[in-house]
Amino acid sequence: MRLSRRHPRYASLRVRLRLADAARRGLVVPEGLVAHGRGEAFDYLLGERTTPSARRAARAAALWLLRARRPVLSVNGNVAALAADEVAALQRAVPGLGVEVNLFHRTPARARAIARELRRAGVRDVLGVRPSARIPGLPSDRAQVDARGIAVADLCLIPLEDGDRAEALRRLGKAVISIDLNPLSRTSRAADLPIVDELTRALGAIRRAARRLGPRVRDGRRPPFDAPRALAEALGAIDARLTRAARGPPRRSAR
Amino acid sequence: MRLSRRHPRYASLRVRLRLADAARRGLVVPEGLVAHGRGEAFDYLLGERTTPSARRAARAAALWLLRARRPVLSVNGNVAALAADEVAALQRAVPGLGVEVNLFHRTPARARAIARELRRAGVRDVLGVRPSARIPGLPSDRAQVDARGIAVADLCLIPLEDGDRAEALRRLGKAVISIDLNPLSRTSRAADLPIVDELTRALGAIRRAARRLGPRVRDGRRPPFDAPRALAEALGAIDARLTRAARGPPRRSAR
Repeated sequence: MRLSRRHPRYASLRVRLRLADAARRGLVVPEGLVAHGRGEAFDYLLGERTTPSARRAARAAALWLLRARRPVLSVNGNVAALAADEVAALQRAVPGLGVEVNLFHRTPARARAIARELRRAGVRDVLGVRPSARIPGLPSDRAQVDARGIAVADLCLIPLEDGDRAEALRRLGKAVISIDLNPLSRTSRAADLPIVDELTRALGAIRRAARRLGPRVRDGRRPPFDAPRALAEALGAIDARLTRAARGPPRRSAR
Repeated sequence: MRLSRRHPRYASLRVRLRLADAARRGLVVPEGLVAHGRGEAFDYLLGERTTPSARRAARAAALWLLRARRPVLSVNGNVAALAADEVAALQRAVPGLGVEVNLFHRTPARARAIARELRRAGVRDVLGVRPSARIPGLPSDRAQVDARGIAVADLCLIPLEDGDRAEALRRLGKAVISIDLNPLSRTSRAADLPIVDELTRALGAIRRAARRLGPRVRDGRRPPFDAPRALAEALGAIDARLTRAARGPPRRSAR
């Protein structure tokens, strides 16, 4: 399908084409495409931009990551397909950031394909290809993690993660930063620091903030983050946009 | 994946699994899965139920269909995968309802597979397998229709349709009934009678209304329908739910 750069939703449509292509290559599963569509709807309602509240969350996330002892970024098929370059760039900006393949629908071949995609983008020491530990409280096929990664992490950055796993990580006492466009999802509600923003925008915002902060901020405790407030702000942004949309634009105009 | 009947979103998850399975069989394209996810998000925001406003729209749609000279129901991959049985049941309830395979991503093999799925469910005289006419104003690959179906229809029922095509049908002077969960979509805004509801719920509601009305209502004109009001009511329902969600439930509870 050809896509005009002048299309009002060019960025969103380009992302969708990229994901559909990744699905054809087996990197992304059908359920991942459906999940992406849910995100698209929320992004559309948020105005397809990083809200000021999400920008503050990304800055807080950068500081938390820099101050963590063992931070790990969890990567599933959608994340690898959409943001392998951003994952590599964030790893360069956050010293010691582990990157772990963490799949809901895991097959050894898919885990290897995702690891390849990450390495090709420049990610070093990809974890989780051969899981060596388990998270308690999850069905066995979804509990698998890397003994050198999520299993021992004090802080997990979980983009596009399923609610059960987000809650399981919390129960283990790990600090959890989520990236999820749905402010009502269990993942967003379970997170200590929910970022309600589109994946690549959020990863870019965290990376830029980490670069600006630099290694000099590494010592010190994690400053508190008001998660319920961040979620309420995201709902407020959606609400404001719906209210505007209900007033206009006039019927039958292109949006 | 096993799915517990006690899961709070069992119905929605079952539909998703069915669609993922249809994608693996080639009936549904990756873009269709993403589109389904967008619908899921809006359905979630609507409370995963038929609103009173959508029920009124379905009743009006039944009367329009019964009074149409040549009504045609347009079927794409998602519709065939999710609602072939409902399509067949609606055809039995609306005398003379044409059913036409109408694909955004068309290949002859896919058109045939969808027609097979429809026939297996009991649909008679499936149109559109070998397109024989074109709709003006659309890229050639998406303009193809059946000379005995949409080309000559006075009323088109278009579930899950793309905005360009919905607008093209309107420009041809056809009455358009849409089924689309996004009240802001171009399809919903182009329709003379937009039904903002989930596909199978909406088709079921139209069929039941058509059965109740019966053939005695066939004569007469189409009563008017207030489309902007229906869309405003859908936005209002979403807004009310977001407001409730912003107040509670408490963090970290299952939703």
